[in-house]
Amino acid sequence: MWLNASCLLEFQIPVPTPFLLMLRPRSGRQQWIAREEYVLSPSVAAAEFTDSFGNLCQRVVAPAGYFSVRTSVDVETADGSDTAPWAPFVEVQQLPDETLPFLYPSRYCESDRFTEMAASIATGQAPGYNQCNAIVDYIRSSIRYTPGVGQQIISASEVNQLGNGVCRDLAHLGIACCRALSIPARMVVGYLEGLEPMDLHAWFEAYVGNRWYAFDPTQPNMQGGRVAIASGRDAADVAIYTQFGDPVGLLNMNVKVERMPGPPY
Amino acid sequence: MWLNASCLLEFQIPVPTPFLLMLRPRSGRQQWIAREEYVLSPSVAAAEFTDSFGNLCQRVVAPAGYFSVRTSVDVETADGSDTAPWAPFVEVQQLPDETLPFLYPSRYCESDRFTEMAASIATGQAPGYNQCNAIVDYIRSSIRYTPGVGQQIISASEVNQLGNGVCRDLAHLGIACCRALSIPARMVVGYLEGLEPMDLHAWFEAYVGNRWYAFDPTQPNMQGGRVAIASGRDAADVAIYTQFGDPVGLLNMNVKVERMPGPPY
Amino acid sequence: MWLNASCLLEFQIPVPTPFLLMLRPRSGRQQWIAREEYVLSPSVAAAEFTDSFGNLCQRVVAPAGYFSVRTSVDVETADGSDTAPWAPFVEVQQLPDETLPFLYPSRYCESDRFTEMAASIATGQAPGYNQCNAIVDYIRSSIRYTPGVGQQIISASEVNQLGNGVCRDLAHLGIACCRALSIPARMVVGYLEGLEPMDLHAWFEAYVGNRWYAFDPTQPNMQGGRVAIASGRDAADVAIYTQFGDPVGLLNMNVKVERMPGPPY
Amino acid sequence: MWLNASCLLEFQIPVPTPFLLMLRPRSGRQQWIAREEYVLSPSVAAAEFTDSFGNLCQRVVAPAGYFSVRTSVDVETADGSDTAPWAPFVEVQQLPDETLPFLYPSRYCESDRFTEMAASIATGQAPGYNQCNAIVDYIRSSIRYTPGVGQQIISASEVNQLGNGVCRDLAHLGIACCRALSIPARMVVGYLEGLEPMDLHAWFEAYVGNRWYAFDPTQPNMQGGRVAIASGRDAADVAIYTQFGDPVGLLNMNVKVERMPGPPY
Repeated sequence: MWLNASCLLEFQIPVPTPFLLMLRPRSGRQQWIAREEYVLSPSVAAAEFTDSFGNLCQRVVAPAGYFSVRTSVDVETADGSDTAPWAPFVEVQQLPDETLPFLYPSRYCESDRFTEMAASIATGQAPGYNQCNAIVDYIRSSIRYTPGVGQQIISASEVNQLGNGVCRDLAHLGIACCRALSIPARMVVGYLEGLEPMDLHAWFEAYVGNRWYAFDPTQPNMQGGRVAIASGRDAADVAIYTQFGDPVGLLNMNVKVERMPGPPY
Repeated sequence: MWLNASCLLEFQIPVPTPFLLMLRPRSGRQQWIAREEYVLSPSVAAAEFTDSFGNLCQRVVAPAGYFSVRTSVDVETADGSDTAPWAPFVEVQQLPDETLPFLYPSRYCESDRFTEMAASIATGQAPGYNQCNAIVDYIRSSIRYTPGVGQQIISASEVNQLGNGVCRDLAHLGIACCRALSIPARMVVGYLEGLEPMDLHAWFEAYVGNRWYAFDPTQPNMQGGRVAIASGRDAADVAIYTQFGDPVGLLNMNVKVERMPGPPY
Repeated sequence: MWLNASCLLEFQIPVPTPFLLMLRPRSGRQQWIAREEYVLSPSVAAAEFTDSFGNLCQRVVAPAGYFSVRTSVDVETADGSDTAPWAPFVEVQQLPDETLPFLYPSRYCESDRFTEMAASIATGQAPGYNQCNAIVDYIRSSIRYTPGVGQQIISASEVNQLGNGVCRDLAHLGIACCRALSIPARMVVGYLEGLEPMDLHAWFEAYVGNRWYAFDPTQPNMQGGRVAIASGRDAADVAIYTQFGDPVGLLNMNVKVERMPGPPY
Repeated sequence: MWLNASCLLEFQIPVPTPFLLMLRPRSGRQQWIAREEYVLSPSVAAAEFTDSFGNLCQRVVAPAGYFSVRTSVDVETADGSDTAPWAPFVEVQQLPDETLPFLYPSRYCESDRFTEMAASIATGQAPGYNQCNAIVDYIRSSIRYTPGVGQQIISASEVNQLGNGVCRDLAHLGIACCRALSIPARMVVGYLEGLEPMDLHAWFEAYVGNRWYAFDPTQPNMQGGRVAIASGRDAADVAIYTQFGDPVGLLNMNVKVERMPGPPY
């Protein structure tokens, strides 16, 4: 399907403030960006680099006053996310080098604390995809999904204790459990068509059957219409914006995802 | 200044043919891409990767029949290219690691054959920027610039013997001479506002005074309005498209660069 | 000074077990490896890769039975670690791209929880090196260094509550506080000549005055004789060995650092 | 088999001279380095980096006077090089991204000039490994291998005209022909056990059947005992040493490869 996905961020900046932005979806095997707008207002010099996860990042110093970042993409993406029940566990020695960082604990995914819990959830499951599915089922039944409730980022341990969380929190818990089973898992931030209420979304991917598969503990089935913006070890790696110095007010954030009848031409 | 730069490639494809495309300018310290369109027609799956020079490359299999690639960017770029007479030569031991590949001979820049000639051209010049300038002056006075005359890619040695060439050829000669003086030099392919006749353009950059500076042997002064699309060791690294298998006809190529009154909003 | 530094790890392996090893110091501007031994016993096939932090990592499947890893290097390293009181804070917009990952919170350095504490410790200090020094002074006076007491890895928050820790824990706390001040900070694991009792050691580095400087909260002054083995965001990135599957017993670990009269020839 | 391979380079340096060295074999799936010595005499500060092909490179400024570089490795390597007749051609669109640079023409492998010749040599061969083998057979029958005859580096076109060459030249010709058939091919410099007369050696690898296979036009069969030191597009990428500034005399170069009874312990 073809989608137009857009995000507007508006700030009121008291003093010139450095930002790091991560809002540019990249073309890849799962999605193709045919048209992209990326407008900083007022227009300021920006430098771009690619981080170690392959995300395109922009560095900018926002001037004092009103500052906005507006991005919009026309993108072709799959109608349905691939699923692969019974896709096998990949032995650690067979994993591609680049998947290894996603085996370790990270800021919000303390996988070293989930060894027992993950083993218990996965009991009786075929190693690999089915274990991941069991983890997602566990999260769906144990953690209440509370979309849109803004909060400080909490870790997998904390969300597990709290019993509810936003999409990001549920993804953290899924990632922590997968890693505890020696399955590489990573966080994805992006757009999801039809999300209610519309917002940026987070899900996770696990590496089984020799590729990454998407899992989304907040949605009843693995519908498509996904546009990945950035991926990393957890929310610490994939903040769509990071602001340094004294806290700055986000006046407004507006996310839209709309079906297009076809390619943009 | 703000520019809209666009390139349309149209092909007639006899059998499905793999292409490698390199047509996406990236935002960096010299230019900022605010809006980009990238349309393949008919729409086909494409995969993107970043090569070792930092260029965004797309891999695609063009289906049989008519196939076009259309790219368009709104970009802010400098009104004038930076110049820095007397910027010093950087001792090899002080060069950043990533500049070193640009010291070696490459396919079309046989710098190993230019040791004497480069030394002769640079005689009496302060090491660094002024040497590069002397090389550009030499090229301007010795090699006739023949824009738009399509031909097989020839090497720096060949253009030096032939006495005339397109922008790419003159850049190759400049690069070969700079490297022969142990100055890192690289090829840049991009847009240049006001180029006559309008086409894609090629120039080169040399690393002196601790940064890259642009040099353009085909233009009387270092005017700005440049949009770099790709950079590499020579034309072998920065072909805007590479086609594999049996040769395919390029029906049409259309390049435009137009001033915009301001940012695209 | 010239040092011979060696590490022997001995395991009893119940079933073939994948390991990831990170025990090879690399030559760099701070140290030069003139001779290296790297012996796996029994000899097994190993594959090596470089992680995103530049560390050399080996992947190996240890066979059942006795398994040892022995590494030994002859290395030239500085007599004293560089210090630079008053070296200035680097504005975020001026930081090199590759330092940015070291600004974010990580598994064991929850810098997002140390904003107030770090600001309080650094009050009145010149931004940059002196702030880092104040953090080290704070750690020295508040956290008891308890070398050699093995334990589960704890985070900066946890060590701050507990009031004591091993070298790794004190480094985590230092890193978390630096990052909370927008100073990139990273963990280093390595050898330290004269350490009592001898063991592998951990310290941290902070990026001020346009380079990385070493800080060691466990040692009274910044003596030299350091051989960095690996660096990363925190202990999750720089485990000298990571073992997957059922836990394996470490029979013995033996670390030695000895002065050499000169280079090994 | 276990080998000890060593290389000694001795120079007389008139004035301090920057060098780039590429003499450190790396552990990988084909070879495992158990012990390594790397001695610069006199001892000088050196900095190391990894180039875009994965080779470990050292940067050093050799002081005036006698200067030597001595490297020695104990390495486990295969008894015989893998061969795979009928291993299939990999369609360009299926090639891993990292193999693509090895499809393009390079300084000494002007594959763009070998389209017809390569097609002619490969006529009737199954696409893939057998084509590479036909190229090697062609080189063996048409180009006289003249080991040890030092000379300026010449390109594939030049060796093809000349009719004789050293190992490096024959490898260049093989690479150029493979690339002309859209088969990625790269140069390897390394040690070969039993080479007569003993020297550093060069061969090439081609990517067919989803992996790299070694080909050696100078040897009657693909014997093992190979230790790869560096790989790249051609000799311009893999010089074991590159010296900048005024030419320096190489007093002596001594290469040894000896069987070891077993691992070094």
